[in-house]
Amino acid sequence: MEEKQISKAVINRLPRYYRYLGDLLEKDVVRISSKELSEKMKVTASQIRQDLNNFGGFGQQGYGYNVEYLHSEIGKILGLDKKYNVIILGAGNLGQALANYVDFERRGFFVKAIFDVNPRLVGTSIRGIEVLSTDILESYIRLHPVDIAAITVPKTKAPQLAADLVKWGINGIWNFAPTDLNLPNGVTVENVHLADSLMKLSYRLSGEETD
Amino acid sequence: MEEKQISKAVINRLPRYYRYLGDLLEKDVVRISSKELSEKMKVTASQIRQDLNNFGGFGQQGYGYNVEYLHSEIGKILGLDKKYNVIILGAGNLGQALANYVDFERRGFFVKAIFDVNPRLVGTSIRGIEVLSTDILESYIRLHPVDIAAITVPKTKAPQLAADLVKWGINGIWNFAPTDLNLPNGVTVENVHLADSLMKLSYRLSGEETD
Repeated sequence: MEEKQISKAVINRLPRYYRYLGDLLEKDVVRISSKELSEKMKVTASQIRQDLNNFGGFGQQGYGYNVEYLHSEIGKILGLDKKYNVIILGAGNLGQALANYVDFERRGFFVKAIFDVNPRLVGTSIRGIEVLSTDILESYIRLHPVDIAAITVPKTKAPQLAADLVKWGINGIWNFAPTDLNLPNGVTVENVHLADSLMKLSYRLSGEETD
Repeated sequence: MEEKQISKAVINRLPRYYRYLGDLLEKDVVRISSKELSEKMKVTASQIRQDLNNFGGFGQQGYGYNVEYLHSEIGKILGLDKKYNVIILGAGNLGQALANYVDFERRGFFVKAIFDVNPRLVGTSIRGIEVLSTDILESYIRLHPVDIAAITVPKTKAPQLAADLVKWGINGIWNFAPTDLNLPNGVTVENVHLADSLMKLSYRLSGEETD
């Protein structure tokens, strides 16, 4: 598929389409109209058509969308037709939660190793994935293909760790540390700031919601 | 402070301001110019001034911003001058990670109880917080003030659980289940969709980034 300029807003909505279509697939739904999809997703039908037109449409007048085809096409756009080797930095609760999340694997994200500085955790395993010492992180990365590093270490450790990871050749970072990482261009960072999310919730709970 | 119409985009940036100002406070920085703050945060100085003008400014020409004052004012806007009683549904890794996150407490979010259906977890405790049986969830909610329920249960269980929570009087939901909850107006839901975040990362890794 040819690359087109696609707005960030559309990209942000694609995973949600993918999730809904996946749910429909699980229920053996073969096709769906943009109207039905719109009612399910609480997005206007015209928004859906407009979003999907960015990728050449996929819909057919009078038929709607073929669920399996649309799911698979959006998956390709999201890069889910590829496989990603993932390592997790930090074997605390959050790192363990990520390692245990089997749905990731179904979508092509394979956790290959987990690293921790705590000697009591090193040598244990989570869902069959061994916890390795951070001491051998550099050599691991130099010897194994790693596409994504998930950072779940404390915020004081995260910036240096991220800089090291990039130096050793990693350019995909999934960052859970509550700090922004300033990394070179070309490195892709996706942040999950749990505290920011909680503050948005308290904002909306404590005052008038405005939007 | 009077309520004004504030755009969602500004609200989405406020937690980040709060986080940066908190870091400066920890380093005993007393004041900062919008130019310095702009360089740190990689946001234009004019954007910062514009954002903060929504709340009456806080800056002084030639002085910049008083870090402690601005931090505390943004905190008030975010509702962090109040205390929130939080319960966690699901004592798996993610629920435990949330219960262990002491920073939340520092910001006024107090985890009061954790609920799980698994009898092996009921009666254990996490950071001194007891894991209770989901069987007594309704009576717990009817007897204790709860502001926020964090949902970390599987996606098949989440919609019914959320509907029950709302029926029993809860109107703040922090949802980690990978599904959208369709709840009545007046209920505030903040979603953390980890899989969506991971798909955005793979999109950016697999193709040209466009924005």
